[in-house]
Parts: sequence; structure tokens; C-alpha cells
Amino acid sequence: MTAFDLVVRNGRVATAADLFEADIGVKDGVIVALGRGLPKGTRDIDAAGRLVLPGGIDSHCHVEQTSSSGIMTADDFYSATRSAAGGGTTTIIPFAAQHRGMSLRTVVRDYHACATPKAVIDYAFHLIVSDPTETVLGQELPALIADGYTSFKIYTTYDMLKLNDRQVLDVLSIARREGALTMVHAENHDIIAWLSDKLMDAGLTQPKFHAVAHARTAEREATHRVISLAELVDVPVLIVHVSSAEAIEQIRIAQNRGIRVFGETCPQYLYLTEDDLDKPGFEGAKCMCSPPPRDKANQQKVWDALSQGVFQVFSSDHAPYRYDDPEGKMKHGSNPPFKKVANGVPGLEARLPLLFHGISEGRIDLHQFVGLAATNAAKLYGIYPRKGTIAIGSDADLAIWDPEKEVTIRQADLHDAMDYTPYEGLTVKGWPVITISRGEVVAEDGKVTEERGRGQFLRCDRSPLARSTGRRVTGFDPVSGRLPGL
Amino acid sequence: MTAFDLVVRNGRVATAADLFEADIGVKDGVIVALGRGLPKGTRDIDAAGRLVLPGGIDSHCHVEQTSSSGIMTADDFYSATRSAAGGGTTTIIPFAAQHRGMSLRTVVRDYHACATPKAVIDYAFHLIVSDPTETVLGQELPALIADGYTSFKIYTTYDMLKLNDRQVLDVLSIARREGALTMVHAENHDIIAWLSDKLMDAGLTQPKFHAVAHARTAEREATHRVISLAELVDVPVLIVHVSSAEAIEQIRIAQNRGIRVFGETCPQYLYLTEDDLDKPGFEGAKCMCSPPPRDKANQQKVWDALSQGVFQVFSSDHAPYRYDDPEGKMKHGSNPPFKKVANGVPGLEARLPLLFHGISEGRIDLHQFVGLAATNAAKLYGIYPRKGTIAIGSDADLAIWDPEKEVTIRQADLHDAMDYTPYEGLTVKGWPVITISRGEVVAEDGKVTEERGRGQFLRCDRSPLARSTGRRVTGFDPVSGRLPGL
Amino acid sequence: MTAFDLVVRNGRVATAADLFEADIGVKDGVIVALGRGLPKGTRDIDAAGRLVLPGGIDSHCHVEQTSSSGIMTADDFYSATRSAAGGGTTTIIPFAAQHRGMSLRTVVRDYHACATPKAVIDYAFHLIVSDPTETVLGQELPALIADGYTSFKIYTTYDMLKLNDRQVLDVLSIARREGALTMVHAENHDIIAWLSDKLMDAGLTQPKFHAVAHARTAEREATHRVISLAELVDVPVLIVHVSSAEAIEQIRIAQNRGIRVFGETCPQYLYLTEDDLDKPGFEGAKCMCSPPPRDKANQQKVWDALSQGVFQVFSSDHAPYRYDDPEGKMKHGSNPPFKKVANGVPGLEARLPLLFHGISEGRIDLHQFVGLAATNAAKLYGIYPRKGTIAIGSDADLAIWDPEKEVTIRQADLHDAMDYTPYEGLTVKGWPVITISRGEVVAEDGKVTEERGRGQFLRCDRSPLARSTGRRVTGFDPVSGRLPGL
Amino acid sequence: MTAFDLVVRNGRVATAADLFEADIGVKDGVIVALGRGLPKGTRDIDAAGRLVLPGGIDSHCHVEQTSSSGIMTADDFYSATRSAAGGGTTTIIPFAAQHRGMSLRTVVRDYHACATPKAVIDYAFHLIVSDPTETVLGQELPALIADGYTSFKIYTTYDMLKLNDRQVLDVLSIARREGALTMVHAENHDIIAWLSDKLMDAGLTQPKFHAVAHARTAEREATHRVISLAELVDVPVLIVHVSSAEAIEQIRIAQNRGIRVFGETCPQYLYLTEDDLDKPGFEGAKCMCSPPPRDKANQQKVWDALSQGVFQVFSSDHAPYRYDDPEGKMKHGSNPPFKKVANGVPGLEARLPLLFHGISEGRIDLHQFVGLAATNAAKLYGIYPRKGTIAIGSDADLAIWDPEKEVTIRQADLHDAMDYTPYEGLTVKGWPVITISRGEVVAEDGKVTEERGRGQFLRCDRSPLARSTGRRVTGFDPVSGRLPGL
Repeated sequence: MTAFDLVVRNGRVATAADLFEADIGVKDGVIVALGRGLPKGTRDIDAAGRLVLPGGIDSHCHVEQTSSSGIMTADDFYSATRSAAGGGTTTIIPFAAQHRGMSLRTVVRDYHACATPKAVIDYAFHLIVSDPTETVLGQELPALIADGYTSFKIYTTYDMLKLNDRQVLDVLSIARREGALTMVHAENHDIIAWLSDKLMDAGLTQPKFHAVAHARTAEREATHRVISLAELVDVPVLIVHVSSAEAIEQIRIAQNRGIRVFGETCPQYLYLTEDDLDKPGFEGAKCMCSPPPRDKANQQKVWDALSQGVFQVFSSDHAPYRYDDPEGKMKHGSNPPFKKVANGVPGLEARLPLLFHGISEGRIDLHQFVGLAATNAAKLYGIYPRKGTIAIGSDADLAIWDPEKEVTIRQADLHDAMDYTPYEGLTVKGWPVITISRGEVVAEDGKVTEERGRGQFLRCDRSPLARSTGRRVTGFDPVSGRLPGL
Repeated sequence: MTAFDLVVRNGRVATAADLFEADIGVKDGVIVALGRGLPKGTRDIDAAGRLVLPGGIDSHCHVEQTSSSGIMTADDFYSATRSAAGGGTTTIIPFAAQHRGMSLRTVVRDYHACATPKAVIDYAFHLIVSDPTETVLGQELPALIADGYTSFKIYTTYDMLKLNDRQVLDVLSIARREGALTMVHAENHDIIAWLSDKLMDAGLTQPKFHAVAHARTAEREATHRVISLAELVDVPVLIVHVSSAEAIEQIRIAQNRGIRVFGETCPQYLYLTEDDLDKPGFEGAKCMCSPPPRDKANQQKVWDALSQGVFQVFSSDHAPYRYDDPEGKMKHGSNPPFKKVANGVPGLEARLPLLFHGISEGRIDLHQFVGLAATNAAKLYGIYPRKGTIAIGSDADLAIWDPEKEVTIRQADLHDAMDYTPYEGLTVKGWPVITISRGEVVAEDGKVTEERGRGQFLRCDRSPLARSTGRRVTGFDPVSGRLPGL
Repeated sequence: MTAFDLVVRNGRVATAADLFEADIGVKDGVIVALGRGLPKGTRDIDAAGRLVLPGGIDSHCHVEQTSSSGIMTADDFYSATRSAAGGGTTTIIPFAAQHRGMSLRTVVRDYHACATPKAVIDYAFHLIVSDPTETVLGQELPALIADGYTSFKIYTTYDMLKLNDRQVLDVLSIARREGALTMVHAENHDIIAWLSDKLMDAGLTQPKFHAVAHARTAEREATHRVISLAELVDVPVLIVHVSSAEAIEQIRIAQNRGIRVFGETCPQYLYLTEDDLDKPGFEGAKCMCSPPPRDKANQQKVWDALSQGVFQVFSSDHAPYRYDDPEGKMKHGSNPPFKKVANGVPGLEARLPLLFHGISEGRIDLHQFVGLAATNAAKLYGIYPRKGTIAIGSDADLAIWDPEKEVTIRQADLHDAMDYTPYEGLTVKGWPVITISRGEVVAEDGKVTEERGRGQFLRCDRSPLARSTGRRVTGFDPVSGRLPGL
Repeated sequence: MTAFDLVVRNGRVATAADLFEADIGVKDGVIVALGRGLPKGTRDIDAAGRLVLPGGIDSHCHVEQTSSSGIMTADDFYSATRSAAGGGTTTIIPFAAQHRGMSLRTVVRDYHACATPKAVIDYAFHLIVSDPTETVLGQELPALIADGYTSFKIYTTYDMLKLNDRQVLDVLSIARREGALTMVHAENHDIIAWLSDKLMDAGLTQPKFHAVAHARTAEREATHRVISLAELVDVPVLIVHVSSAEAIEQIRIAQNRGIRVFGETCPQYLYLTEDDLDKPGFEGAKCMCSPPPRDKANQQKVWDALSQGVFQVFSSDHAPYRYDDPEGKMKHGSNPPFKKVANGVPGLEARLPLLFHGISEGRIDLHQFVGLAATNAAKLYGIYPRKGTIAIGSDADLAIWDPEKEVTIRQADLHDAMDYTPYEGLTVKGWPVITISRGEVVAEDGKVTEERGRGQFLRCDRSPLARSTGRRVTGFDPVSGRLPGL
């Protein structure tokens, strides 16, 4: 056995299923040995008393992306990936976002141009499909899927992004045929637009009315509709950033019926409520995102759904717009109506500590944490087993956690380009004290690497979880155009 | 006590709640006495051994209406009302159907012009709203509601009729503000259109593929969506012609949650199946309607929902297009693709016997029959107590049923203008042997009055059942624009 | 037409389905005419501005019955029936309660001996079966059913009353074979006994712990179990005095599955809560009954279930034990542990006003009130159409209600033998100002007849609603011992 | 790094979460290294092209146990453990079964006396508690739990075993206080006994009527009841050998409500149906077990529940009674009535191949297989991480599977003491070709070790999964006797 570049020694190693004491031997960025008393490596890290977990995968974040209202995110690939690393995350999967009229291939090239020179940790891309033309569906998507962009996100809302039901059916058909995974932002556009107009007409324009406009009913409706469309096409689908009991119930009902529906939620739905949008002045804008945070009862349902396996993915939906900034939340003034405020909250760095805190509160267990933090996303998005676990042959992407360390979250300590965090002042138990990417320490005790461009692009495989189940609603299969028996 | 114009003697009188033996004394078209041994009237009918029930109300039928594909119904107000009378029905509520660009007021005037000289029994009108312009919503609808047109139907499908979700919200808002009742044809348009195109592409054009294109999933989706929209507006809504277990389940869930959702079904969902669309040649077109008939298991669920009170209304959805007719089903050839075939089946005359047959089969009881045949519709549409029951002061609209009479349904015996009935050859137990409208016998032993124009127009009151329940999804009320407490 | 003994004139007459203005002509205690402008009767009552409703039927009350702990109810047939009449009720169905070892026939004779000389309104009897011996099941029950005692109540709790599951199956089998209706007190005995002992051990003996011992889980469990047993036997069953959301849900699930389960609730579950058991000193004992009142959220669910048709029957479960009385609640001292306190609350007189009040609050409508107050019970227990409605040929049992009259309930104004009412001080809208039994005014403006023995015994028919539905759980039918096809 | 006793080389190693290629280094029976190119061990096994999985844990089997009807199982600890090893299982957890009147401590000693000299693989014991006396509950159980017997099974049926609800509450209370896990056989005894008697009375005595007597309703009822009792006590509970859609639904509902209910199923519910009990002559007796196999639709629901995580445990419920044997199924004659036939089917050896076959059929995935076969049981019963996974420090209990090998199951090839297998002739894909227990090959290519007594007893820890969740039904805690706030 060759000498190790790195040995992480004496830690308690946890995977999505197991917990054991072992040393981890790393060579050329890859885990090559698990054992006890491994020979010394070039570098040795003593993890006694610590948990050694797979580095996190944040599979839903917006980086160097222009919002639908034309505002650029505060974070570029440098600040975003540094922030991620600071929070125990070693892989991000942001979006290559198509604007209407653009070629998807061009979009992808442009995002690579941004990421390549700046990223400090590894990354893949989801595509955002906002303009499913014949060319996009028939040529670009199949080719890009073959090239390693095997997932895409679509929207049922936002004027510049939303697809109608027929377009959703077309995109889902491509997903099924090509073995790609479709992520859906599920809120009913007309409900939101109509309520927004009614609120505006009534002069109810403060941030808190954003939460009123994005009624839970709008989320439930679109969730049920998207599931129906996916059921018809017979293809798995992932409902992203689920915020409410009603949407959870729709997902659960479908799962119980044998429909392959995946679910994702985010820290804002565990820790924020609509009351946070009702802070004095314009402060509430700091917690504006879509869907919005709900109330305490819904928070509880979101936690329950995490522990019961309704959700497979836990992401940040990092969408960073600075607060006191003419290119951020205040682009349209110091207290603009809610419809004019860029939607989104940051979360790349706080995501995992916020979830980990749930272990000490008895809400989830350690293995569920690992699955939600890393393993499940790796499997869903086709980068497993290279990413997402601690196993022989996997990349040595590790996060060493001090499970007892209590940390009060402060924006001053974070590494993104934001001027606020919605979790300011919140104290959590458990913190990732060292982050390792392909065998290299990229963050340690609050200090994060500045090595721009060390992050590598990950070509994603087609996920076996994206495959159709063969449960057909009708005898006729609309994707193949075949009628069994004919 | 003045002399009676008519006494119906010795019958067993049934209402939606009660069953008792009594003579019914009629004066000036109105029930003025219930008793035993009433003095002789100008005419006496002996109903010994018979059931005397309220005359039926068929609250969903298309008469002298041009279909969305431009085909006129075979029945005009003369043949339609005669056919209704022949089947024990004494009131119909067809549609005054707006085509886009038309004034609703004009539409109503036109339909009156058709009905006034021809109807042999009484009638009211629902409006069909396909073009909810500002004028229609802000002026015409409120005025027409005040004039006695207190219900309207909207569509989520058909190119020429469908409203988008925002338009549905606008229409529902008017309904709530004005106290009107909204009926909805709930099928997802994009699903149907997409499946139809896929079927056409695959060369699957026979009538039976109509049932494939109108997947149950499309009905479930739209039913859930419409309920969500109505819940948001906080206004009752009626889902018409429900055909499937899935849509029933959505209605039931909403009802259990305290949402005021009403449901309607039709005889085609009790007696036909999708197999009837798969008859040799073009025969299947005779059973094409939307939603289509489903299968035996769904039939059972529809019966169950009738007996469990999920449905309040049982209508024919009479939409008569002749089979072997260049102005009917064969307008586009002798075996055109299903998308070119006029949708609809007749049912005005067979509706009540088909439902009554369910009594002898133990599926519903007599009082449920009366409620579904007449009383519930009268209450829902604001013509109760003038219509829909047997009580002092009500119009003497009666149907005298021989509960033991077995009749095999034959088109030759019916009084509409059709050349087929989908129920040809079906034998039912129980038949309305005499139909009385405002104290006048309009049908007896298969002979129906030819007195054109004796039918009267009924101005509908606002139904108390159409009122909002006050259960609001959000604190903000989008209809009033008010926030409680502000 | 012969002269009327009584005409109730100008009222608005309501049935379970209808509402109309009419005079009611009565002859020999029976309704013989409905009309307007009826000729004058021997007595005329002007009901202008009033509602004329069927007299109430209280189908669950304990009169002159010894409790399982050996305490005689405060009311005998005289005070009980007077109290009922004072509250608009014209028929009661108390219990002929078997103690173990007793012959049912003897029991019935004994109760008749009590009732015959004292009752001022009509009455039938349910049997209580606590000792289903071979003789009871094989001989006495069939004979008594044939004689007009067509319903019986069984218990799953109380040491002296409870049947085990096998006995329940045996009783249900007789019910199915003989066409009788089984009422069940559904609470899990072991749970209650075990919790009671734990509470006693912990010194938690005050009345409020009665509500803890009778956990909602105990009610849910037994409700599900009894429904399972009835489903197995394929016979309808009525769950009496349902108090909680959980039990309601079980009944609803079964009804949705097509199982014929009926439900009953009582005023105590609409107006009292467990907090009422936590009044200072021993006061809480006044609200002790089984199941106990729950909380506000459960009250809402009970109201919802009334309006949604989950419940068919609304009774008082009148079980009158005086408060400050050595033969009542204080039999075992002035503040005995809850297990020593006689269980039950009075309600014969307040039942209907408490339910009627729900109309003005928009919780139920007038027709639901009539159904719950009278019609449904008449049909379920086989005394319809003699009792329970206003129709030609029915007994002239009427309650004339002033729907606008506001009354504050005071024990001082009631006619039972109690020294308290749990509703003391509660103000309700709507009051029965005149009660008429078989054409005779028995209560008017707070004065109740003292004519002992005018009440008549009612032989009950077998109810069609008690018939099996033919939906069998297994191929084998355990009641007939037959296997289809053999 | 010390030399290895054994290296399993080149296999694809799977855990409940992961799949990776690695060599496994074993020393002193323990896994000490995972890597690639590990140095040669004393023995090397080439697993190229094979799957290396944790050895199975069969946590529900009856060995050297007398049935409730007094028949000794065919298998003793020698044949049972050899059979297990032949099927890839390396740990069994049979029962130390109390008969009424016996001391639990004595029972445990007796079973140890049987196991110690014969077992060829490791084992733990569950207790069966049939007589929860004060001594058993207060002294024996707590002491035995402390000694490593941390789970026990109770019954709701069988005359000699069943506990009443109060006894169940008492046992569950001990489980909660001591941190033990309660397994429950959930079928309603009275229903089964009553149906059995009715069937016997009707002369319906063949094996197939066993399935009729054990109606699905009996299982559903007891499942709901047991969950209710556990909920009341606030302690996790495991429903064993779940066979039907109805029981699954009850478990799922409880899990969704946040109740910690675990579920187990067995191969007989995946591969057998009630039709197998209807074979000619007495053949059906070979498939008699309780609950009985159901039908194809229920099989599908059981598979679905496996894949959806409703079940955590998959056991054999091995209860071996020979067919053609006066000490087996034919004890009471060559064709005795079903009530006289010993209940149970064998399955120790076929269990894992039958489950593994589900992978190739797309019903479950490899990780679910590992969890169900081994990991979950290890965690639930407190022997993890010593058993149940492949990780550093765990016992080297391994099963090397050839995933492509197709094997037709034949009793002749199995190693138990039976004369039949219910799966005779069934062909499955995937077979455990080598079984390794603590680093020693105990089975290979159908040859199984004969080394009696090499198996070791496993003291079980208290499982963290057996802990109460703190969700209390009532304010009062009946186990601690405490009222919060007092």
C-alpha cells in the first residue's frame, strides 16, 4: 500500500447508514483506505472526538445568475464556493439559466466561463429551461444531457420563466426519454399575480404581503398539478423548496400511491416564519423568498417530513441579494413595494449547521443528516459514488464536525458577498471545523482557501432514480407513441 | 276552501325527506292542499299504487346551442322540452352561451327568443361565460344576476371556451360578490390537447381514443385546481359532470375540510363505459362525451358518491348531436378522427328512469332520488320552493311514477330529435307514467303535449347555498380588498 | 272534510327537506290536512311568524334507570317526559336496561310498569344487553324485536355492562338476522381502567381527571374496533355520543368506504369542555359524563360532522344525577374521587334549543336541525312516519318555535328533577314556545301538562336502515354459515 | 498494519447506503481494513463480479420452541443455524418463550442450554411474555433487559399466549421505562375464534378456511388497537409479520402522524397467496401460517410498503413443522380440521434470496435489501454496529452474493430439518454463494459448516430506536405518574 497524502485519524466516521471509528487514508484526492492505525500520511489530522462526514452537496443555489427581474446575485463563483466551503460543503450544483431566446449551449458555455477561473470547490450544473423550443427540446437538451448536464429546473411561475402545462409535459417527456431529472418550482402563477395585484390595489405593499400573495394554496395547487403531469408522462420529478404542510401532503399522497416524486426543502422553512417578513421598516425584505417562510405549525410539518423521508434533498436555495444595496433588495428604492424586491435569501454557509442542529434537538438522526446533506443529492444528480459519501474510491471530500461546538451565526463570520444573513444571532450546536476537498483542506477554523479555480467541473451521470417506473396512467404511452399490444 | 282544478288522489307522495299517502289539491297551477279524501276537482287522477314525486329538474342541458366546433344541437326548445316532459321532468335549465366577443345581454335575449315560442315546460337559464371582459364582469354579470340569471358555467378546457386561472379567479370573485353560483367543467386542457396530438401522431384516431385523451388525471388535476381557486376566493363552486373516482376523491376531501364544493354527475357515468366507445366502425361516437365514460370500477364509485351525498345534482348534460347526420357526429365525414366529432350524448328523457332504477338495485333510496332529481337543484339554483318539491304553495309540477313498470329504452319511444340513444335496449324498473306541469298533464302514457310556448321563464333567486362560508385561506380578503383589523 | 280538532295556522312549516307556509289540520291526534285558509278547528293556534317543526325525538336518555354503580336517576317517567315536553320534544326512547342475570323480558315488563302510569308524552324502548346468554340471544331478543323493541345498546366499557368482542359479534349477528339496530357505547375499557388506576395512584382524583382517564385515544380505539366487528358481520351499527375528532374520523373513513355506520352526538360535546370539569371544589362533577367533553377544537369538529352528515342523530344522553344529593353525585361524599362519581349530565329539555342555536350561528341549517332533532331518529328506530315529521297521516307531534326568542337557560325554569343544568346562564336564540303531542298542547310558555299517563308506548318497526348492505369482508358469511356457491 | 486472517478481495461492497469496490481485511473475526490492493491474508477470497453484503440477520424465527398447541419445532439450534448460514444469514434472533406460570429467568436459561452446544452462527434472544405477573414485570423483565435481552414479543391472539389490553399497557410501560422494544403479533383473537367456530359449525375445515378465519379485518383491528395502546404509553412498538394492505395502512397513518411504529413482513406475504392453502388434499397445510398469505393485490401492497419504508424489518418467521409427520402438521391426523394444524412455515434459508429477487424485478434497490436483510434489525435490536453492516470494527459477518445466479429452490438443497419448503420450484435470481461468520467461512457452494457450538450469544444493547418520542396523548404521563407542572 502506497503512502497516504492525508490521513484523517481517530474520527467517528458517519455515512447515510453507518457510524464507526476509523482512520481515513487519502491518496491523490481519493479515499483509498479505511482502517485503524493507518500509517502516517504526508499530513495527518487528528479527528478524535469529532465526526467525520461526507462534505456537503448544495444542489440548489444561484451563483452569478441574473434574476428574472434583472438583478445579478451578489455572489460570484469565488465568494459562493468559499462560503460553501466555510460551511462544510464541498460540491455545489448551481444553475446555468436560460433566458428566453437564448441557446442552452451558449448559456452553458457562459456559466463555465464564470466558474472555471473562480471556483474553489467542485461543481456541476443544472440547466434552467425557460424556452423549450423545438431546437432546445429536440437537439440541445439531449446533447447536453449526454455531456453531463443531466438535470434541469423549470418554473410554474415568474413571468420570464414560467412554462405552461403543455410545455411542462414536453420537458418531462424529454426527461423521460433521455433519463434526466426535472426539478420544479411549483407555485400557481395566476394566484400569486392576482393576489399581488389585489394587495397592490389595496395599498398593501410591505414585505410581509409577499407572504400573503404566495398563499400556501398556490403551492399546494401547483404541486398537485406538476405531480399529475409527471404521473401522466410516467417520469420522476423533484419538487424543490417545499415550504408548507399542504404541499408536503400532496407529495406524501403521491409517494404512497407509488408515484416517484422527490422533495426538497431548505433552512428558511425550518427557521424563519412569515413574521420575519413583518419586521419594522424594510427589514422584512431580508427574509423574502419564494415560496415564503410560513408559520411555526408549518415548520414542524417540514421537520416531520424530513424525518419521515418525504424529502430527500436539503438545499440552501442560496439566492443572494444584498440588503442595503442599489443592486440588491433596494434596487427599486429604499422601501419599494414587495413586487419590486429581488426574491431570495442566502444560505450556502449556514445550511448544514442549521440542519445539524436538528440532531441535537432530536428532530432527525445523524444518518438522515448525512443523506440530506450529501448522499441523496449525489445519487439523485448522478455524481455518486464520486461524491456524497465516505467510501473506498470516493473523492476525499470531508467535513470534520465538532458536534458539541455552539456557534452563534454572524454575517461577519461568513464568507459570502452578502451584507446580512437571515439567521443573524441564531445559536446552533455542532459546526464543521475543517472542510476537505479532494484531500486538501479548504477551510479550517473559519479560514477558507483563496485558491481560485481549484474547483473542478463534474459531469453528471444519468441518475437511476430519474428512470420511469413503468406505472402508466393510460394504456397509451404518449412518450413512445405506443399502445401496448399494437 | 275553493274547488280544485286538479286532484291527484291516493298516491304515495315522496319528498326529499318524507313519504306519506295523500291527495294533492291543485288550484291555478299551485299545490294548495294535502290531505285525504279531498273533494273532487275539475280533473281527478287516481294515483293509487303509484308514487307521486316532484317533477324533475334537469339543470344541465344544451338546447338550441351551437357547440364550440360550430354544430347546432339537434334539439330546439320544442323537442327538448317535450322530451324532458316525457321523462318526468318539468323544469330545464339550459345555457345561454356566450361566444367570445359577444355581449352577454345579447346572448340572453337571443336564447329567450328561441325558448319563448317553443318551450312546453318551464325553464331558467345559466349563463356560459367564455369572455370575461371588464364589461362582462363589471356590468353585464351583476345586472343579469339581479335579473334572475344567478348561475353561470365556465370551462377549463375547449379552445373557444376555456378561461385561464386568473379569469377563473375573476369570475369567482364576481360570483361571491353578487351571490351567484359558478359551475365548472373541470378538465385540464393542456393534458387533453397534448394527449390528443400524440394520439393523432400515432394514427390512433378512432372514437375510443377520445377516452384516452381525456385521461382521469386531467379531470382530477382540474378539479383540485378549481377547488383551490374557489377556496382562495372563499366562494362555493359546483363541479359538473364528474366521471371518475379521482375527481370524486378531490371533492370529498374538500368537503371534509369544510370547503363548500358541490358536485354533479350524469347517467352516462353510471351506465356507459369506455368500452362503449370501442364498438365496431364509428358506432363508438354515439357514446362520446366529455369527460368520457370510464370503467365499471369508476361507475361503482359514482354510485357510491351519489348515495354518500358527495353529489347534490344529477343532470343529463344533454348535448344532442345526431349520429348519421352531416350536421351531427358525421359532420366531418363518416368516420372522422375523434377530435373532429361533436362531443355529447342525449339524456333529457332517460335521465330520471336511469336514476330511479338505482332504487330497485339498492344503490340509493327514494328520498335521495327526489333530492337528486329535483329538490337539490331547485335550492342550488334559486327556484325553490316554487319548484323542486311537493308542498303547499309550490307549483304543481308532479311526476307520477309506476315503480314496478319495467321499460326497455328505445329511441323510437323518445321525444327528442335524435336518431339514437346510448341506452338503447337497456331495461329499467320504474317509469314516470304521467307528468304534470303547473297542474296540467303534459305527458301521459308516452303521449306528450304539443302546446308550444306554454313553458314559462323562471327568474332565479340568489341561492343561499352560493354564499361564502367566511373560511378564508389568508388574512387578506382579495374580493373585498380588506385586511381584518385594518 | 270533517271538522278539525286543532288547526295550527299561518306558520312556516319545516321538514327535513322543505319549508313552506301552511295551516296544519289535526283530527284525532293525526295530521289530516295541509293547506292555506283551512276551516276553523275546535282549537286554533296562530303560528304567524313562527316555525312549526316536528316535535323532537330524544332517542338516547336514561329514565328511572339504576346506573352501573347503583344510583337511580333523579328523573322518573313523569319528570323526564315533562322536561322533554318543555323543550319541544314529543317522543323519548329511553332504555330498558338489563342487569346481568336478569331476563330481558322481565326487564321490559318492569320498565313498562314505571312508564305507563307516568309518561306525559309518547315513548319507545331500546334494550340494554349486558348479559348475552344463549337464552337472551336465541329466544328473548328475537321475540322482543318482533314485539317492537327493535334496537339495543351495548357497551365496550363499564365493569357491569361491557361485552367482550366475541359477545359483540354475537349480538351483532342477532341484529343482522332479526333486522334490529345496535347502538354502541365505544370506549376502550382497559385504557380507561388503567389510566384511572394510574391517576388514583398519583392522587389525581378530582373531577377533571375523569377527562384524562377517558382519553380520546380510548374512544378512537373502540370506535375503530366496533366498526371492524360490524363490518365483519355486515350489519349497520350506530356509535352513540361521539365526542372527539378522532372518533369522527373513524366513522367518516368507514362511511366513505361504504360501511353503514351511523353516528350520534349530544349537546355536551358542542357546549362543554374539559375545562368545565376543572371548576373549583367539586363543581366540575356537574359536567362529568362519558365520554367527557373535550376541547374547543373538538367542539368545532363535532359541529362540522353534524353539518357534513357524519352524524344522523342528536340526543341528550340525559343521565340525571343531582349534584348536592346523597343519592346523586355526592353519594360517596362531598368530594369523592372521580371514579366514585355517578356519570352523566341532564339535557332532555335543553337539547333542542342548544342545537337550534347552531342555526343562527350558521353552523347547520334548518333542515339539518329537523333531521337531527326528529326525522332521522324516527327512521332509524322504526317509528317513522308515525313520528318525526309533519305529513299527512303522521301524529300531530309539533313544536312551535319562536326563532328570534333569546332565552338564558336556568335550572329554575326547567321541569326535570335536577338541581342543576350544565348550561346554566347560557343564552340561546330560538325557543319552542308550544309543544303539541298527538294534537294536544302539552307545553306552552313554560307551563307543562301534568296529565300523568297520557303518553303512549310505541312499538317500533324494524328499520330499513338496519339492514345489511351485502358487502362482505370474506367470502364466507358467518351469520348464515354459508359460503357462496356451496 | 498487522497481517490479515482473511481478505475478501475485489468485490463490490454494499451497505444500506453505499456501494463501492474494495477489499475487506479481517483480523480476529473483525473487519479491520477497507481498501484496494490489501496485502494477502491467511486466506484470500476473490469476490470479483460478486456483491459483498453484510451477513443477514433473521430477527424473527422459532427454534427449538414448543408451539402454543404443544408441538416442538422441527429445527433445533443446529439445523436452524446451519440452514440460516446456507441462506446468507449470520445472526438469528429466536425467542425464549415463556409459558404461563414459568419464570422468565428459567426460560432464558433453558434456551441457552439448547443453543450453546449447537449453534453454528451467532444469536441473541427475544423474550416472549405470556404471563406478565407482578414478578415478571417488576423484577424479571428489568433484570433481563439489563442482561442483554432488550426486546420481547407479545401476542393479541392464541389462547395460551394472548394478553388483554391492560396487560399490553403494562408490558409497554415496562418497555418504555427500561428502554426495551416490544414486538406484537397483532390479530384480533375473538374475531378469529368466532369465525373459526362458525366455519367448523359449517363443516368448512380444510386448510384454506384458515385464511378465512384470519380475516384481514382481524389484523387491521388489532394493528390499530396496539398502535393506540403504544401511543398512549408513548413508546415505540413493532408490528411483526404484517400481511395485508389494511394493516399496512394503519401503520402508515400512524407513522405519518409522528407515532414511532415499526413494521416487519416476511417472504410468505410476498410469494404465497391464500390460493396456496387451497391445494388438493392436505397440501394447503404447507402454507398455513398466521396471519395467512392473502392475495396478489395484497402482495403488491406489501412490496410497495417495503420500498416505501413502511417496513424496517424483513424476517422469516421461521416456524418449522414437518408436513408428513405425526409430530408436525399431521399431529392430529392426515387431514385434520385447520384449527388442529400447527401454524407456521419455514423460511430461514430462503428468506434472503426471495427478497434479493425483488431487486432484479425492480421492486426494491440493493440498499433497501441490505437494510431489510441486516442493518435495520441490528439497529432496532441493539447489536449494531457489531452486526448488520460492513464497517471498520464490525464483526466480519459477510455474505458474498452472485447477483446473476439463478437458483430453483428445492427442499433437497436446504439445510433445515424440514420435509418441504413452500417455495419449492420457485426460481430466483441472485444467491449467496459464500457465508462468512466472524471471518470464518461457514457456508460455501451449498456446503455448510458442521461445527456445533461455534455460534456466540449476543447481549443486546437498549436500542435508541426504542426510546419514547415524548409526544404524549394526555397531559398526564401514566408511566411516570407525573402531571407536567405539578
